[in-house]
Amino acid sequence: MAGEFDLIKRYAPRGADRSDVLLGSGDDAALLQVPAGRVLAATVDTLVQGRHFPEKTNPYDIGWKSVAVNLSDLAAMGAEAAWLTVALTLPRELEGREAWMQAFCEGVHDLAKAHDVAVVGGDLTSGPTSITVQALGHVGEREALRRDAACPGDLVAVTGALGDAALALYLLDNSAAPVPEALLGRLNRPAPRLDAGRALAGLAHAAIDISDGLAADLGHVLEASGVGAVLELDKLPLSSEFRAHCPEGLMESMVLTGGDDYELCVCLSEDRLDEARAAVPGLTVIGRLGTQTGLQVFNAEGKTVELGRAGFDHFKENG
Amino acid sequence: MAGEFDLIKRYAPRGADRSDVLLGSGDDAALLQVPAGRVLAATVDTLVQGRHFPEKTNPYDIGWKSVAVNLSDLAAMGAEAAWLTVALTLPRELEGREAWMQAFCEGVHDLAKAHDVAVVGGDLTSGPTSITVQALGHVGEREALRRDAACPGDLVAVTGALGDAALALYLLDNSAAPVPEALLGRLNRPAPRLDAGRALAGLAHAAIDISDGLAADLGHVLEASGVGAVLELDKLPLSSEFRAHCPEGLMESMVLTGGDDYELCVCLSEDRLDEARAAVPGLTVIGRLGTQTGLQVFNAEGKTVELGRAGFDHFKENG
Repeated sequence: MAGEFDLIKRYAPRGADRSDVLLGSGDDAALLQVPAGRVLAATVDTLVQGRHFPEKTNPYDIGWKSVAVNLSDLAAMGAEAAWLTVALTLPRELEGREAWMQAFCEGVHDLAKAHDVAVVGGDLTSGPTSITVQALGHVGEREALRRDAACPGDLVAVTGALGDAALALYLLDNSAAPVPEALLGRLNRPAPRLDAGRALAGLAHAAIDISDGLAADLGHVLEASGVGAVLELDKLPLSSEFRAHCPEGLMESMVLTGGDDYELCVCLSEDRLDEARAAVPGLTVIGRLGTQTGLQVFNAEGKTVELGRAGFDHFKENG
Repeated sequence: MAGEFDLIKRYAPRGADRSDVLLGSGDDAALLQVPAGRVLAATVDTLVQGRHFPEKTNPYDIGWKSVAVNLSDLAAMGAEAAWLTVALTLPRELEGREAWMQAFCEGVHDLAKAHDVAVVGGDLTSGPTSITVQALGHVGEREALRRDAACPGDLVAVTGALGDAALALYLLDNSAAPVPEALLGRLNRPAPRLDAGRALAGLAHAAIDISDGLAADLGHVLEASGVGAVLELDKLPLSSEFRAHCPEGLMESMVLTGGDDYELCVCLSEDRLDEARAAVPGLTVIGRLGTQTGLQVFNAEGKTVELGRAGFDHFKENG
């Protein structure tokens, strides 16, 4: 059986080749050139099997998603993604372990390469399956989309349809029929909105990516910025697949508190809206910020929607 | 029971306050200022319970060690450590979980602060205990201590005593008597040799930190640089505690293939030795590089020492 060093050499995902990688994997640390006048953006996220992805998720998708959720965080800063490190823990006794690793690494490599991101470091250990990815990028300091810079009066907008990933997860658990590919793809291979984030850098005031659900994530922006928001439920963008497959009565919770969409939620001045829409096709205005704190959502009849469970919390909930 | 967000806020280790942290924990990504003319150094390592630290290790020491092994990698590049991210996975059902977290975070904070390193991001998930730390720092591009830059004729030197951590681990498993604190401290609270690394940057040719054992780690340098080395066993620095407690016949394997020392092994030109010794007290020459590839170790009688197990390999071995 191949040892750690052999496995790392054989399957190590490289991602893109970049001239700003002065020294990549294989030394004690990677050496990377941050462009002059830009600041480093750094984020980290761990995915644990059975919690962040269903047990049966194929390893290619796990690799993809591990990268996607981190690139999504850079997108939410308006940053350009440049480099990744990947720490993989995998049971030694896992059946088909080498094939698993190979597929996982392909998933990492493919998404990284698609976004011109280099994989510059990694760590492989044996233990219960989990993955921690750190994504590094850069952004102009004054252009960064922080959570604390939203202003009363700003429009609230999202970059794409909400609820697809939560619906896919629900159907996996509760439906005997195969889950439509279009929904499953949103759950297993989310698309980090790096282009949208870069386009909105220096244009929008604030942004966050929707990982824990719109209500919870927008809530972080509201809290950090000391503002409140009013959203209109029937303005939330839904995909045709979502409309076709969402069970009666579950729409509200799927789109408001379902996580894993990885769309961006941005706050921007109304007078920049046309510019933002031109730069980000599909940007949808869903509400407006005000000075009264808290989040209120109204449905088409003008009634307040109960938000209930405020978001995904790994320790509070079973999610 | 407190939820994830509460726990993170309550115990989050901050480390040092640094003016180059433009935005710390709490947003989608941290924003960090790499000094002009320096390149970013990035490294990542995962620690899994029962594999990288004994089950009974106290959480303060686990936090400390998680940081130490990563700062050690920056030290081995000759880099100045600046920032950390910490991803912690901990079982939700763990008894005394909050106290565990608090102590863990104190260990992270204390070592980070001692080296003027800021903790700029984190992630907390529930699952089997593991920790992934990413350390970020910076170094002058031409001063970095790479593995591939060692030269034939270079002296091989180490920054401190070897074998203490391996002996502590051995005694924990095989001795009923309490393990001497001086040895246990080397295992549980290793000291990253950041000062030595910085002092040797631009002075030594190559360096690596000794995490998997001298033979394995020096072996990486030899392979990357296309050189070989001859070491003299009786020149390897041993602590008085080590000499007092190491069982007959185990010395060679402890100092040559025992891991977890986190001393630096450096290769440098003989004409820079005085300068290096002045900058790094305790630097000990243990051998010399040559053009014949491979690693040979001779004992005091001039006989070749069998290296046997070449180093710590998580997948090959039980270590």
